[in-house]
Amino acid sequence: MGYTDQDWQSINTIRTLAIDATFAANSGHPGAPMGMAPVAHVLWNRIMNYNPKNPKWINRDRFVLSNGHGCMLQYALLHLAGFDLTIDDLKNFRHVDSITPGHPESHDTPGIEVTTGPLGQGFANAVGLAIAQEHTAAQFNKPGFELINNHTYVFMGDGCHMEGVASEAASMAGHLQLGNLIAIYDDNSISIDGNTNCAFTEDVNKRMEAYGWHCVTVGDGDHDLDSIEAAIKACQAVKDKPSMIKLRTTIGFGSKLEGTGGVHGAPLKKDDIIQVKEKFGFNPEETFVVPQGVHEQYAKKSAEGAALEQEWNQLLEKYSKEHSVEAADLKRRQTGALPDGWEKNLPVYTPADKAVASRKLSEIVLGKIHDAIPELVGGSADLTGSNLTRWKDAVDFQPPSTGLGDWSGRYIRYGVREHAMGAVMNGLAAYGTILPYGGTFLNFVSYAAGAVRLSALSRERVIWVATHDSIGLGEDGPTHQPIETLAHFRALPNCMVWRPADGNETSAAYYIALTSLHTPSILALSRQDLPQLENSTIASAIKGGYVVHEAEKADITIVSTGSEVGICVDAIKTLKDQNNLTARVVSIPCFEVFDVQSREYRLSVLPDGIPSLSVEVMSTMGWERYTHEQFGLNRFGASGAYKDVYKKFEFTPEGIAKRAVATVDFWKDVPNIRSPINRAFQQLI
Amino acid sequence: MGYTDQDWQSINTIRTLAIDATFAANSGHPGAPMGMAPVAHVLWNRIMNYNPKNPKWINRDRFVLSNGHGCMLQYALLHLAGFDLTIDDLKNFRHVDSITPGHPESHDTPGIEVTTGPLGQGFANAVGLAIAQEHTAAQFNKPGFELINNHTYVFMGDGCHMEGVASEAASMAGHLQLGNLIAIYDDNSISIDGNTNCAFTEDVNKRMEAYGWHCVTVGDGDHDLDSIEAAIKACQAVKDKPSMIKLRTTIGFGSKLEGTGGVHGAPLKKDDIIQVKEKFGFNPEETFVVPQGVHEQYAKKSAEGAALEQEWNQLLEKYSKEHSVEAADLKRRQTGALPDGWEKNLPVYTPADKAVASRKLSEIVLGKIHDAIPELVGGSADLTGSNLTRWKDAVDFQPPSTGLGDWSGRYIRYGVREHAMGAVMNGLAAYGTILPYGGTFLNFVSYAAGAVRLSALSRERVIWVATHDSIGLGEDGPTHQPIETLAHFRALPNCMVWRPADGNETSAAYYIALTSLHTPSILALSRQDLPQLENSTIASAIKGGYVVHEAEKADITIVSTGSEVGICVDAIKTLKDQNNLTARVVSIPCFEVFDVQSREYRLSVLPDGIPSLSVEVMSTMGWERYTHEQFGLNRFGASGAYKDVYKKFEFTPEGIAKRAVATVDFWKDVPNIRSPINRAFQQLI
Repeated sequence: MGYTDQDWQSINTIRTLAIDATFAANSGHPGAPMGMAPVAHVLWNRIMNYNPKNPKWINRDRFVLSNGHGCMLQYALLHLAGFDLTIDDLKNFRHVDSITPGHPESHDTPGIEVTTGPLGQGFANAVGLAIAQEHTAAQFNKPGFELINNHTYVFMGDGCHMEGVASEAASMAGHLQLGNLIAIYDDNSISIDGNTNCAFTEDVNKRMEAYGWHCVTVGDGDHDLDSIEAAIKACQAVKDKPSMIKLRTTIGFGSKLEGTGGVHGAPLKKDDIIQVKEKFGFNPEETFVVPQGVHEQYAKKSAEGAALEQEWNQLLEKYSKEHSVEAADLKRRQTGALPDGWEKNLPVYTPADKAVASRKLSEIVLGKIHDAIPELVGGSADLTGSNLTRWKDAVDFQPPSTGLGDWSGRYIRYGVREHAMGAVMNGLAAYGTILPYGGTFLNFVSYAAGAVRLSALSRERVIWVATHDSIGLGEDGPTHQPIETLAHFRALPNCMVWRPADGNETSAAYYIALTSLHTPSILALSRQDLPQLENSTIASAIKGGYVVHEAEKADITIVSTGSEVGICVDAIKTLKDQNNLTARVVSIPCFEVFDVQSREYRLSVLPDGIPSLSVEVMSTMGWERYTHEQFGLNRFGASGAYKDVYKKFEFTPEGIAKRAVATVDFWKDVPNIRSPINRAFQQLI
Repeated sequence: MGYTDQDWQSINTIRTLAIDATFAANSGHPGAPMGMAPVAHVLWNRIMNYNPKNPKWINRDRFVLSNGHGCMLQYALLHLAGFDLTIDDLKNFRHVDSITPGHPESHDTPGIEVTTGPLGQGFANAVGLAIAQEHTAAQFNKPGFELINNHTYVFMGDGCHMEGVASEAASMAGHLQLGNLIAIYDDNSISIDGNTNCAFTEDVNKRMEAYGWHCVTVGDGDHDLDSIEAAIKACQAVKDKPSMIKLRTTIGFGSKLEGTGGVHGAPLKKDDIIQVKEKFGFNPEETFVVPQGVHEQYAKKSAEGAALEQEWNQLLEKYSKEHSVEAADLKRRQTGALPDGWEKNLPVYTPADKAVASRKLSEIVLGKIHDAIPELVGGSADLTGSNLTRWKDAVDFQPPSTGLGDWSGRYIRYGVREHAMGAVMNGLAAYGTILPYGGTFLNFVSYAAGAVRLSALSRERVIWVATHDSIGLGEDGPTHQPIETLAHFRALPNCMVWRPADGNETSAAYYIALTSLHTPSILALSRQDLPQLENSTIASAIKGGYVVHEAEKADITIVSTGSEVGICVDAIKTLKDQNNLTARVVSIPCFEVFDVQSREYRLSVLPDGIPSLSVEVMSTMGWERYTHEQFGLNRFGASGAYKDVYKKFEFTPEGIAKRAVATVDFWKDVPNIRSPINRAFQQLI
């Protein structure tokens, strides 16, 4: 309320910065920044609590630009607000090695909470941030100490609403009654194919209300700052529902092409820029201009933010005295470091221990470590009893009014929403106080591929408990049996794929996954029981690959993962008895971790001089990097009892021995066989 | 109306067959078949038009079980209705090599329209089937000849509704006003995690209405057959909206555990089976029983279906006389064969032709072939102007009331809904008269991974026009630049990934994609211009790999795809001038097609005796199968002008030459270098 010409100058500064930056880059999206500048200004200058000098203040309000292509809006705001993002950074928009890339990336740019651009993701991340806020508040707030009460604001466009991941997340958020989540929907009727009436004619408010959201419409988002502010405040007042403001705006407001697709994804033309700048009272000859009044208006806001954090820090200091354990825990969590000694809880096995499915081994790990790692927050996409992701006596994260749990609960019922689960976990991890894991069948991690990719790109510690990891799931059949999945995620940079073969390897997988602060992990776990291996130890397995069975003067190295390692060990005897061949066996539970071991170590595992054969019941793709020959499944699986399926495809000691014999035979005339570990040059990283 | 005890005996036969089959398999899902048997019986015995003796009759009503885990329901119905699915097939439920796998697979089992199980897919397939019906009707029906007027029925559970792919498809279907689509939602309040109140509390009808659906609720789906029939007929009467019947049922009806998660995914216990069978009037000592009256009731229905088809065939005969061209076209389309001579339209290029982006080359192909191939129906996930998927003067597939197109239109506006687009295309292809293609950025084909997987498994001819295929997209940056995507889909069985390097290769990619009746294709296409190569021809490129530049006494084979082939050709000169090395260059636009060429041919392309180096600006995973050394990008890309990005990562003639020199050096002491084409044994297929 009480908006003045100064506000409009600020709004138009955001617009002209977006115009100038996209023009300078000769690429980018001016339309959304120009259309959303008014609401962005109201939010950033009047509503949100943040301190640009400490972008990581834990109780800051979170802002997510789900329509990430409009990132010049966000970069302009960060610059005005005083984050460490200079006018030169704006000038380098979309240039190699700038901190202002074509879509917002959280790992390099201060003030960017999550990496957005792939549509729908940011919205789902915001749901995760809002869950994290509710949960952290429930865990840490005490009478007289409302430490955690921030809001999460997310901007989204038509494209975000069309993506299924956003629908899934919206349904979750409605169920969870996330009162501190406020979405602002840029209802500008334009997407890349033109007017949204060609493909998107649903009643968005009605749909969101069906999910349990509170919805408000603001009819004139181009001019009516008072209504925008009033709508946001009305949403803040609704505490038992997430809110959405449907804001009618004009894309590319001020351009000759305003309201059309012409301003969506291409810079304005020179003559258009001149008329826009004149209309907004800017000198068309100048670029990247921030008037003094604008600086002052934002400096005032930033000073208020700094004062707020100061006040909060005093509250925390007092809290630290009365609740020292909690305060220490809150501080520790933000560093990413786990509590001292947590790893002593990891179970250790000997070969005498019985065979156990690795999904069950995972459950045992979770049962033993959850007390020691209070930031661990789990869940499953409606496969709890199959993924075994819930420790005994876990409390569900639920609105207390449901009677099914409470906000402090550490187990999330994601529903059959794998993609949202992945994106929500990214939001949970980004909040700063939570270490999320989520379960589904390995095959359905693919439904969440878009979110997993962003975990890796934005370097979030997120753990997938991906059970039923192969044809070994048996009767459910080819629709559920992964073939390409491990290759897919092994090819994804900064993503660890683990396929542990037994109890110690499962503990090792958790150890590395939990302590890798900036890398997501997928744990591929079996439905069927796996024997405890000789020579498997946590210390060996955390190297990503090691020798399970060594042999002098071996004829062949057999290399495997997960459920096939035990079968390979059995094949040693078959080979000796029937073919008089000596085999050594190697387990590589994690390519990514093995790859960063020393060359010497890797060559000790996969030595020169003898041929090697990989064995894994799925696509052989990628195994050529480690072995000379590959036994896998480059076709779809089959429905049947798992032992029958393994037999059909010859993943038996006999079937392995047959391929090992062929391998030895094929390589017998090659002198000085070179291990595939040897490479002509290093890969770029 | 007028249901008798015979109907209930039929319903209970379906239930007991599901009970017996899951018990015999010691796995499977009895709950949904038991709960949905009443509506299934009404639909299959009273409503649907089908002829079990000809499961491919084009105007049959389509039935999709989106909650595919309940497939014993579908198998029981197919058996009763007289499809070629025997009682022994039911006894072999979930056994290796049966036609009754754990989830329905369309390629092996008569009467299964689409492969389902991964939740949400079947519903979206049904939307595709309904679009196909509307489109085929618009293309072929004539006054007095309503040849095509079938309905599409889809059963779905809570799980399907929770999946984003179904939300996307539902929004599309509402926009498209698909009046012949009727969904039946099994509202049984149970999912795997227990009561749906733990995660799924939205108002489903309200949400579907917001999309533009007509919704009806039937309160007692366990008993009220009259209301079920009336509801279905009411939905049939609504012609301008898709319809959904929300049917309250009791999961596992009749079991001691009815209404609980206990009957969802595990066979009933022995004592429970006894009491259920007694309750239903069956002898508990007997299994797989179909009473005579049930056989008769379904035989009567099947005879009616056969008569209906007979009548329809007469109509077609008459139509053939009056509309001979259309009739011939309709018949031809169902064979999958393309019109004679269509391939003459494929553009051919010479090295003198100018450099063109392969997305543009794709547009040129579409522009030239769409007249010759009337079954080609395209679209884009809201990236039409970027994917270049729409030929000039294409008509949009739209409800005529929108004023934006009509039902005969061959261009679909999918909206920003990649996953639904993939699943809808599977439905379009499964209908039998359409050859679908759809555009998005290659990076966002990953959003549709679940649907692409089912294209491959169910062997549907579906084409992805996947543009902006690498870091070559430039400024949009790492969020949009694929790294792992080609490896992912190359590892997927029965999926062709093409990355053409120029005009002739693009024509070749289309040639193979369009003529491969049972394999989906992903065409990875560049944003940036690519030169026309010497020695590229359609005849060479359709082999999947060929020599672009041959050289005598070469020191190295450089192997590449797409936009990097031209750079590799440029590197030949660099290597000769600066290093006095002779390089030959190979293009492998499609691994899958190259792999099925003769060993002799493959060895002529990748010969023994010299080392090889692959060059592709993404994950090197999989390239070890073809080359000794790999130059790729096993990290995320960068935002910037594409030439700057290529330079940053050294994908320049100089950068390639540097790796080629290292490769030659590294392999110089190895005698008799073996081409990776040589393998110790064949892979299982």
